[in-house]
Amino acid sequence: MEKPKLAEATKKYMLSFYHDNPFLQYLHINVTSIEYGRVRLDMDVQHEHTNVYGIVHGGVTMTMADTAMGAACLACNKQVVTLDCTLSFIRAIPEGLHAYAVGKVIHNGEHTMICEAEVYDERDMLCVKTQATFFVLKELC
Amino acid sequence: MEKPKLAEATKKYMLSFYHDNPFLQYLHINVTSIEYGRVRLDMDVQHEHTNVYGIVHGGVTMTMADTAMGAACLACNKQVVTLDCTLSFIRAIPEGLHAYAVGKVIHNGEHTMICEAEVYDERDMLCVKTQATFFVLKELC
Amino acid sequence: MEKPKLAEATKKYMLSFYHDNPFLQYLHINVTSIEYGRVRLDMDVQHEHTNVYGIVHGGVTMTMADTAMGAACLACNKQVVTLDCTLSFIRAIPEGLHAYAVGKVIHNGEHTMICEAEVYDERDMLCVKTQATFFVLKELC
Amino acid sequence: MEKPKLAEATKKYMLSFYHDNPFLQYLHINVTSIEYGRVRLDMDVQHEHTNVYGIVHGGVTMTMADTAMGAACLACNKQVVTLDCTLSFIRAIPEGLHAYAVGKVIHNGEHTMICEAEVYDERDMLCVKTQATFFVLKELC
Repeated sequence: MEKPKLAEATKKYMLSFYHDNPFLQYLHINVTSIEYGRVRLDMDVQHEHTNVYGIVHGGVTMTMADTAMGAACLACNKQVVTLDCTLSFIRAIPEGLHAYAVGKVIHNGEHTMICEAEVYDERDMLCVKTQATFFVLKELC
Repeated sequence: MEKPKLAEATKKYMLSFYHDNPFLQYLHINVTSIEYGRVRLDMDVQHEHTNVYGIVHGGVTMTMADTAMGAACLACNKQVVTLDCTLSFIRAIPEGLHAYAVGKVIHNGEHTMICEAEVYDERDMLCVKTQATFFVLKELC
Repeated sequence: MEKPKLAEATKKYMLSFYHDNPFLQYLHINVTSIEYGRVRLDMDVQHEHTNVYGIVHGGVTMTMADTAMGAACLACNKQVVTLDCTLSFIRAIPEGLHAYAVGKVIHNGEHTMICEAEVYDERDMLCVKTQATFFVLKELC
Repeated sequence: MEKPKLAEATKKYMLSFYHDNPFLQYLHINVTSIEYGRVRLDMDVQHEHTNVYGIVHGGVTMTMADTAMGAACLACNKQVVTLDCTLSFIRAIPEGLHAYAVGKVIHNGEHTMICEAEVYDERDMLCVKTQATFFVLKELC
């Protein structure tokens, strides 16, 4: 089955949508790739992202995963809110490393959508695995 | 059954532990109450915590909930890491409001601990409900 | 705030609804208490409920928890389907013991509902803790 | 990276392990494929598996998913217990259809393992998606 193509206008809208997001800007998280139902975010782990052990705080990778999944829904032309999200923490990411998250839609329903996301470090080691349910507010035209 | 009392030394250790946490400082999240197996955090929702809709970003309340639960484990004299965390998002918190999170230990096991947390807005409305499993690294003396 | 009372007709409807449920009958799980937004189920752990270790199979307590929560939604006059469910397993229940589950609505929304449930053994020890999101199909009159 | 091969003795042990499981036998769930870190289960949806709507009860697919994931851990020579499990319900499976579950290990740690599973109907439609954490009791020799 062929994957629908994402319109250039939607991509532009999404880039500005996330670029203008105060919390993502505050954490220096950037949207780096947008395809239909699949979005990637990138971030350098800086001092302000860490806990007292010098590794990234769980809240930062939660933010990356949740945002990547919500953005993947938007990249199916659906505006959504997170209903719930489950995260498994597998590996720590120390300060100074680069991290990225990939969110994917695995069920594109009329009322709800199911997504998964992975957060990796710069050596492509799986650090966080998540699964989440989103409520569809409206379809974007 | 009487609840064990938390030593003053542990309380002091915990306050400095979380006060020195770079990510919590960056988000202006403060530990405001510590009892045995129960910790409260407080935060004012400022512009940098919000998404483009002017409400708190899910990653912020995730951070509050995860931290409150991990701290509740520490307040049982156990040093832990989060294994997994599930969050249900119930109500949005707009910029300018005050929010607080309460984390509680509901199973204090030798190898793992189970906690729950709630995040409320300043009108005491339930906004986020979470459940999480922690892996015990070591007992604090 | 006063809790709405559950109509006797709804209680009767619910009892027959769950009494006629083939899987619950097959597992000998009974609805034993119905209040507004709160339902209790009871079951004796028999040989067919166990795994090779002689303790109750996780799927049995999952069934009890999921059913208790869905029934608690029905006891708010809402017909629902489970969107997702998270379960933490705390303690094993050996063959021969009695077990019960209590499901409670913690957010009664228009489109979705959030519930939690606990499964206990006959000594009232907490064995399973769950949190789940339900999608509202329709309001019952 | 080459995947370790599963010893024939382990396969035989696992088949009898699950064949002798009272709850799986009671539900007519069979282990049909075992590879290193990956196990498939099959089941025909019969009347006793259903709820009052004539579709499979969530507890049945929960049982399939949880068992497939635990078996996938065993197929890495690790004996485990489920710590927690999150399930998203996507599509109903009506009585009379065939269903199968595939469980996979995605993190094979020393103390804990992370798995995911999918349950499909006979048309290979995704019906349930799960993620779970397991606690390692011991390595099998």
